[in-house]
Amino acid sequence: MQTFFPRATYYFTSLSQANSPKPKMSYKTQYFPQQLDHFTFQPNSYKIFYQKYLINNHYWQHGAPIFVYTGNEGDIEWFAANTGFLLDIAPKFRALLVFIEHRFYGESMPFGKDSYNSAETLGYLNSQQALADYAVLIRSLKQNLSSEASPVVVFGGSYGGMLAAWFRLKYPHIAIGALASSAPILHFDDITPRSSFYDAVSQDFKDASLNCFEVIKGSWAELEALSAQKGGLVELSRTFRTCKDLHSMSSAWDWLWSAFTYTAMVNYPMKANFLKPLPAYPVKQMCNIIDGFPPGASKLSRVFAAASLYYNYSRTEKCFNLENEPDAHGVRGWDWQACTEMVMPMTCSNESMFPPSGFDYKEFVQQCMKRYGVLPRPHWITTEFGGKVSTSLLMNSVTGSFDDPFSCHLPTR
Amino acid sequence: MQTFFPRATYYFTSLSQANSPKPKMSYKTQYFPQQLDHFTFQPNSYKIFYQKYLINNHYWQHGAPIFVYTGNEGDIEWFAANTGFLLDIAPKFRALLVFIEHRFYGESMPFGKDSYNSAETLGYLNSQQALADYAVLIRSLKQNLSSEASPVVVFGGSYGGMLAAWFRLKYPHIAIGALASSAPILHFDDITPRSSFYDAVSQDFKDASLNCFEVIKGSWAELEALSAQKGGLVELSRTFRTCKDLHSMSSAWDWLWSAFTYTAMVNYPMKANFLKPLPAYPVKQMCNIIDGFPPGASKLSRVFAAASLYYNYSRTEKCFNLENEPDAHGVRGWDWQACTEMVMPMTCSNESMFPPSGFDYKEFVQQCMKRYGVLPRPHWITTEFGGKVSTSLLMNSVTGSFDDPFSCHLPTR
Repeated sequence: MQTFFPRATYYFTSLSQANSPKPKMSYKTQYFPQQLDHFTFQPNSYKIFYQKYLINNHYWQHGAPIFVYTGNEGDIEWFAANTGFLLDIAPKFRALLVFIEHRFYGESMPFGKDSYNSAETLGYLNSQQALADYAVLIRSLKQNLSSEASPVVVFGGSYGGMLAAWFRLKYPHIAIGALASSAPILHFDDITPRSSFYDAVSQDFKDASLNCFEVIKGSWAELEALSAQKGGLVELSRTFRTCKDLHSMSSAWDWLWSAFTYTAMVNYPMKANFLKPLPAYPVKQMCNIIDGFPPGASKLSRVFAAASLYYNYSRTEKCFNLENEPDAHGVRGWDWQACTEMVMPMTCSNESMFPPSGFDYKEFVQQCMKRYGVLPRPHWITTEFGGKVSTSLLMNSVTGSFDDPFSCHLPTR
Repeated sequence: MQTFFPRATYYFTSLSQANSPKPKMSYKTQYFPQQLDHFTFQPNSYKIFYQKYLINNHYWQHGAPIFVYTGNEGDIEWFAANTGFLLDIAPKFRALLVFIEHRFYGESMPFGKDSYNSAETLGYLNSQQALADYAVLIRSLKQNLSSEASPVVVFGGSYGGMLAAWFRLKYPHIAIGALASSAPILHFDDITPRSSFYDAVSQDFKDASLNCFEVIKGSWAELEALSAQKGGLVELSRTFRTCKDLHSMSSAWDWLWSAFTYTAMVNYPMKANFLKPLPAYPVKQMCNIIDGFPPGASKLSRVFAAASLYYNYSRTEKCFNLENEPDAHGVRGWDWQACTEMVMPMTCSNESMFPPSGFDYKEFVQQCMKRYGVLPRPHWITTEFGGKVSTSLLMNSVTGSFDDPFSCHLPTR
């Protein structure tokens, strides 16, 4: 029953589903008149849209560095609120902080509410146009500040980290360095094994507790078996405390899957609120829940309780909406990118805690054609930005902790 | 009477006006299915056109280097025939030679005969799309040859040299080096003085002979004075041995201007046939002609004789067609590029041998709007490719002799 396609593109999109807390830093919101298409000169290319960016000059001294966050797939406020590192280092460098929103996300919509209408409008949503946006905006900003000599360092995490690394590669005359965090720039064109992401997620749980790993691994079959029973979905709905009765197993399946995957992605050593509010070492906490059940408890009840840590750590939810989650702002944007250039095939190996699955490229193409009428260009990112070769050329720091599920997709020197 | 606009963009376009002699190397002609727009994902972006390239594997050993000429504004055969250097060094490196034609030139027309119809079609003609074409083609070629490890070095002259340098900057994972010859990559955004090109042309003539320089410098006023006389154009037509009577002075003016400018650009120390058949040291030869006239000869008769060296060194012309020269293939292509991204303002200083002239940006914009309906983006090239900063980052050799009129626009280390 599992369709791999949505899952393969899933983990990024959740970023924009998170609530957007107000950034902790104080900033001014600005809008930059940006050009729709930097790489053609057709009449339509000259259309102007307003790109949002946040700026904080509290610590800045004229001529000092400019730290730019190259925004990724979501509201820029949210990334600003969750990138405390820049605020931490700004005083030491007397740096200007700038967070630039990615085109087609947040308020930076080239065609307003029609931006996601079709491939005609979405066609302008891609990483190269975004990088050019950043280049044009940074150059203009430096001119307006009369601070052309200020060194620029770009920062980003996840897709934003890819953009930071690629910006340094493509615009070395604008950025003297990049700090790319958890940026899976080797996640293309089979540079790294397709199974490595979910293998790494699984390893995080295995490292926390072998029993925990095995309970999760066995829970999928239990879920399928229960759903196949007469009245199984009703029982499943009760077990999972759903607000409404479930119509199919797949939403429970996705709900669990997301909880384990996202928790591994934000397995920080401190309490945090990036994707959701979570305690320190949330993977370990989840496993404590699973391991703490009395012997004989079903795997399903254990994994539900563990997943509840992710969805309800703040204990505000009385029941869970597993189906028809609102299509929060920005979700479709990443799905489009995954269907065009961000083709990152993912599989689950027998060694993972997820059911083994392959990647059917033909099916993937069909789904992209059906949804957007667009053909993926699976080799384009490695042509445009390179793979291992280009990363060795980057004078960057590409960072990520060893339990980061993207750790296999980061370049090592 | 002089309009600066056509002249500012003139010197490159003549390349494609030259006859295209058969290349001296033997090569196979191939056509690569290329994508119209690498940087958007609209339905139109996926249109395929056939990009021509020439390949010579006579010296190649599998795994040895691939030398790629990044084609500029004209038929690729013509550049292949005039880039003997690659053929000279191929045996030593056992290199594969590949000459790739630039989109919208030669046979590589994305919309066939309609390619130059409007800004809608021409909008896809620009340097970034061309570089992406080269990247895609090179990568595919290496795969087809099963020679992914072959190092690639890109070569080019003039605009093709810019492309080679920029390719190395933007695609360091594909090209390990670039040799960019006479590539004025600093000719943008006032990085170098606007007058430096024509100052350098003039200096070449001054170095050959001060009298020669002064005769040319004085000839423009003589030309204007004669044309203003009653019957002046008839006499001018006779002096210039035109095939048909001239209707205005400007064609004679342009004809002389081009002769001196182009000759300085191809002032090679050996007999050559790049723009036209010419002897070794053609500037010196022109000045010998000018200086060899008896005292009292008019400046106009002297400069006509000198210009005839350029237009008729092979002595095949009985008369000259100064007006209505056929709009040879490719000319409009460069004019479009000059109106969009290749904005290289040129002026003539009082010290040059040309009449002093400025650069009226407003008028330039008006002419581009009138001709193509397109607005120039004068700061785009330096944003996308940088200026002095990026050239210092290039691990390139950007070459040019000191009497090259582009010598001021080349980076120095």
